[in-house]
Amino acid sequence: MRDVCMTGSGMPKGLLGTIRSPRDVQSFDAVQLEQLAAELRQAIIQAVSHNGGHLAPSLGVVELTVAMLSCFNFEEDKVVWDVGHQAYAWKLLTGRSDCFHTLRTKGGVSGFPKMSESPYDHFGVGHSSTSISAALGMAMARDLACAKHEVMAVIGDGSMTAGLAFEGLNQAGHMDRKLLVILNDNEMSISRNVGALSHFLSRNLSSRWVRRFKKDVETVLGSVPGIGEEMLNYAKRSEHSLKSFFTPGMLFEAFHFNYMGPVNGHSIKDLQRAFELCKELDEPVLLHVMTQKGKGYPPAESNPTYFHGVGQFEPETGQAKKFAALSNLPSYTDVFGSALCRMARADKRIIAITAAMPEGTGTACFAEQFPERFVDVGICEQHAVTFAAGLATQGLRPFVAIYSTFLQRSYDQIVHDVCLQNLPVVFCLDRCGLVGEDGPTHHGVFDLSYLRHIPNLVVLVPGNESELADCMATALAHNGPVAIRYPRGAGYGVPLRAMPLIFPIGTGEVLEQGSKVAVVVVGSRVHPALEASREVAAQTGVQVTVFNARCVKPLPEQQLLEIARSHEKLLLIEENALIGGFSSGVLEFLADNDALNGLTVRRLGVPDAFVEHGLQKELRAMLGIDKCGIAATLRSMLE
Amino acid sequence: MRDVCMTGSGMPKGLLGTIRSPRDVQSFDAVQLEQLAAELRQAIIQAVSHNGGHLAPSLGVVELTVAMLSCFNFEEDKVVWDVGHQAYAWKLLTGRSDCFHTLRTKGGVSGFPKMSESPYDHFGVGHSSTSISAALGMAMARDLACAKHEVMAVIGDGSMTAGLAFEGLNQAGHMDRKLLVILNDNEMSISRNVGALSHFLSRNLSSRWVRRFKKDVETVLGSVPGIGEEMLNYAKRSEHSLKSFFTPGMLFEAFHFNYMGPVNGHSIKDLQRAFELCKELDEPVLLHVMTQKGKGYPPAESNPTYFHGVGQFEPETGQAKKFAALSNLPSYTDVFGSALCRMARADKRIIAITAAMPEGTGTACFAEQFPERFVDVGICEQHAVTFAAGLATQGLRPFVAIYSTFLQRSYDQIVHDVCLQNLPVVFCLDRCGLVGEDGPTHHGVFDLSYLRHIPNLVVLVPGNESELADCMATALAHNGPVAIRYPRGAGYGVPLRAMPLIFPIGTGEVLEQGSKVAVVVVGSRVHPALEASREVAAQTGVQVTVFNARCVKPLPEQQLLEIARSHEKLLLIEENALIGGFSSGVLEFLADNDALNGLTVRRLGVPDAFVEHGLQKELRAMLGIDKCGIAATLRSMLE
Repeated sequence: MRDVCMTGSGMPKGLLGTIRSPRDVQSFDAVQLEQLAAELRQAIIQAVSHNGGHLAPSLGVVELTVAMLSCFNFEEDKVVWDVGHQAYAWKLLTGRSDCFHTLRTKGGVSGFPKMSESPYDHFGVGHSSTSISAALGMAMARDLACAKHEVMAVIGDGSMTAGLAFEGLNQAGHMDRKLLVILNDNEMSISRNVGALSHFLSRNLSSRWVRRFKKDVETVLGSVPGIGEEMLNYAKRSEHSLKSFFTPGMLFEAFHFNYMGPVNGHSIKDLQRAFELCKELDEPVLLHVMTQKGKGYPPAESNPTYFHGVGQFEPETGQAKKFAALSNLPSYTDVFGSALCRMARADKRIIAITAAMPEGTGTACFAEQFPERFVDVGICEQHAVTFAAGLATQGLRPFVAIYSTFLQRSYDQIVHDVCLQNLPVVFCLDRCGLVGEDGPTHHGVFDLSYLRHIPNLVVLVPGNESELADCMATALAHNGPVAIRYPRGAGYGVPLRAMPLIFPIGTGEVLEQGSKVAVVVVGSRVHPALEASREVAAQTGVQVTVFNARCVKPLPEQQLLEIARSHEKLLLIEENALIGGFSSGVLEFLADNDALNGLTVRRLGVPDAFVEHGLQKELRAMLGIDKCGIAATLRSMLE
Repeated sequence: MRDVCMTGSGMPKGLLGTIRSPRDVQSFDAVQLEQLAAELRQAIIQAVSHNGGHLAPSLGVVELTVAMLSCFNFEEDKVVWDVGHQAYAWKLLTGRSDCFHTLRTKGGVSGFPKMSESPYDHFGVGHSSTSISAALGMAMARDLACAKHEVMAVIGDGSMTAGLAFEGLNQAGHMDRKLLVILNDNEMSISRNVGALSHFLSRNLSSRWVRRFKKDVETVLGSVPGIGEEMLNYAKRSEHSLKSFFTPGMLFEAFHFNYMGPVNGHSIKDLQRAFELCKELDEPVLLHVMTQKGKGYPPAESNPTYFHGVGQFEPETGQAKKFAALSNLPSYTDVFGSALCRMARADKRIIAITAAMPEGTGTACFAEQFPERFVDVGICEQHAVTFAAGLATQGLRPFVAIYSTFLQRSYDQIVHDVCLQNLPVVFCLDRCGLVGEDGPTHHGVFDLSYLRHIPNLVVLVPGNESELADCMATALAHNGPVAIRYPRGAGYGVPLRAMPLIFPIGTGEVLEQGSKVAVVVVGSRVHPALEASREVAAQTGVQVTVFNARCVKPLPEQQLLEIARSHEKLLLIEENALIGGFSSGVLEFLADNDALNGLTVRRLGVPDAFVEHGLQKELRAMLGIDKCGIAATLRSMLE
């Protein structure tokens, strides 16, 4: 344990409580290993029901994790867990069982493998499909050092569809080093799997080449004199074995991997046997393991999509815990989904694209209402954007709904395929700003910085959920690329307009008119900034100006100039990196227009460091960008 | 023709001169088509020998282009040329033969397909592996419109190794729409191909599963009573057909593509026959076309890597044209390559990684001297970075050499896999700033903006080639991620130090001490800024301060504060986007430290627009960032 505070309160009982080192698992007999698996499931369900988290994936690999620890020595051997949604059993067995109850809480155990948390977390993860590449690097390092330990990657079938996994697989096959890739095949990833590869893995054996092969075999055998009926029958009987011969191993063998499996991923004995075989091979091996998402917890088994990443629930029933507070207000995601459906009814050009996140991005309702205009490309953010560019060249209006942090993977395609050609693609960035418990791999705090410098791109940042709908209508009316960023969580209950407002791009809205000090703010910080300014005004009698800039690119230039000229102090606020973000753009604009002279500028936002996990409100308070922090800064500026 | 100025001087003779519309090609007979191909080759060799360009790839697809235009109607049908290195014949046949002599010159024909240049360029390209995704978007749009035209992508075997191509292929197979993917297989891409897929395509038939298949067939046949020797012989005789049955089509058929080929890509007749077959199929088809890079021009046939992208040469001999001027000075690329070799001799931890660009990045010499520590991952920038992260976790020191514009594809991996984990990977960004004739798809003008906001990352920008070596040594001495950016082209002849200087990160160098006005500058603009300031001093008698900031992140904060406090005016210069770049960082820092008050700031750099192609010096002059432009700005500031 490195980063995480140790608290004794969570000391586990049973076999789990006896484990002092991960190697202890090797001394357990078969019965004990089964008992350990049961205890792990209980511990996982308990913690996740309390803190939320990735339940179904972690339940699916309990036996796999136990079997791995019983066969390998991870003080030497290395493992990269792809995405890391499935690593809770791993955490429990590698030194974090006593503080596992702090899972995903501020200062507690991270929801993802993390190098700084444990020496057993050999590679930090959070975004999909990195595991083969990272493990291959470790394998090369091992070989250069003439060491002999094992290196393995555990990757789900969903992660396998991303281009990065393919690149890693291709290079690994070429390098021909000893490397174990464990394909954790649960026949669905976060949502259902997409793409031809998924069909392939799902053993849908009707594909053309299998049929053609059978025909060829029949022709060959039929043409040999003196064989006849009996031989053909033999060939037909062998159909089953031929099928399993061809699929799915063939694909991986084409990449020079030695294919093994499929193995029952819930049989510790079968897994152990497979691992022992793998150890003997001195080449890239793909071990195909079949698992069930949510295994051992009936509510999760029957609804693995819901229980993929879940909030607090009653462990006995699986029912979500009810909260009185904000949760009745629709989330930005909900508003986005229903606004998009409404727009799509009126405009047939609208296409919705998601990358394996129909539920998370609110596009699932669109998929139901407009199935022929909805595309889930799988975990393929690069392809999503270039595909959208192709659609846009033909007069369609794709809305690409991807979380801010995952759209990072499409940066080049946004620049090169969309903006360079000035194509009207609308990027809908959900989960912008601090996302909370998922932590630094999932915060969307860089998008304004990675988007703002791209020529032709318009960047809009709604200050509430009604303005989100306005931004969407404004984007549709604009004949060029637009990005709209909005936060995770509920809106403020601001009623949507009957007809969304198409506002002039490059204009913002003065919410409070004051003097001396002006707050210029975007997005999720507009509401707290307004509250803070009212609080300060009530306390001090000084009304400050509050300006919702709304457009990060182009900036509301005229209004900004007026504000700069009519105030002495400027407070710029955003929920984005302070480097290169909104306030950086305001500084550029004012500097280029000689409007900084005589002006004092303060900036609030995300400082130059990765922000750890914790509740959104805790993190915002920590960074001084909640109402309280903004008010404190305002007061100091008024002194 | 849309963007390009029409000049009559290049009016082609022969059959090419008779073409008024691309559809005219359909009226040519077989003999005329061969003649047309010969004329195209001549036109291409002529223009490229004069202007430089992508010769070998374009020569390789002359017959393919002619056959496509003879079979399809591209007023309706759509084609996406992957990367676009091969599209010169296309340009000549689709309305640009009369101005093809302006290829890659400022205001002339672009080196890449470009939608704004011609209605026949259906999708702009420049970065690899986008074609299948974009074409799939066009195919979906066609189907939604109930139209019937053909949509096709032409993609090289090198481009096929990138993850994006795989994502497109996977989705296309799943969507099962009519789509033609033409695999232009020349058994090498820019450099040699890399990865298991490449082995696969090269029909190296020794792979495990073919062997295993043969064994299985023998077992099946041998076990049937009464067959014996004769049957086994039959099976052995059928080996050849079995092999061609399995490879390479099988891989694509696994992705639900109908595989056709391989077809001789230099036989117009064979290609036409294949296209007619493809038209009849209402599903995704992969047509495998074998071509030779440089075909028909012996110097390019024998050295296709050199002639992939080539400068001016004598068309008769293929000899490079000699220039008196700067070309004797080593390029930044050369300096990087030899400095890396020198460092690697002393430090066994250093690994060099390139993404299909050993020559372009100067790592070819490293590959020769340290083959076991060199990795060419192919056109897989994402994998390159995550693979490097894996190496770095094990104590190695990877230097990842990728052009600025291509590293855009690794943005997420830089953030997530390297910087979040604070791993000591050194990113070596060649071709930063304006690259010249390759134009907007290849300018490296965004890297400071897309790197600067990433926590933990150090960003260094050498002002000359000797400082490049210093930056490399400084990066190696730093235990965290570092990016070093340097421009395309020759250095200034500044001799390298015997031992490179490890300078304190966050410090720059005062090159001239003046008063009133300070020039704060980085990278390729340091030298011209110094020259300009000397010129202005000679003219006006006023010496201005010139400060080579060298570190873009962290900034040389102490020095910047001193300069800001001791001068009235600041001129910030960089060869990067003005949005989010170096000068933006200086503004942030000075604003946060209340050091802007009373200071007039001017910024020179790349404005918020994509910069077209042209000579580097023309483009720099256009943007006012050459010596002359900087001097003019300085004079205006001194007034």
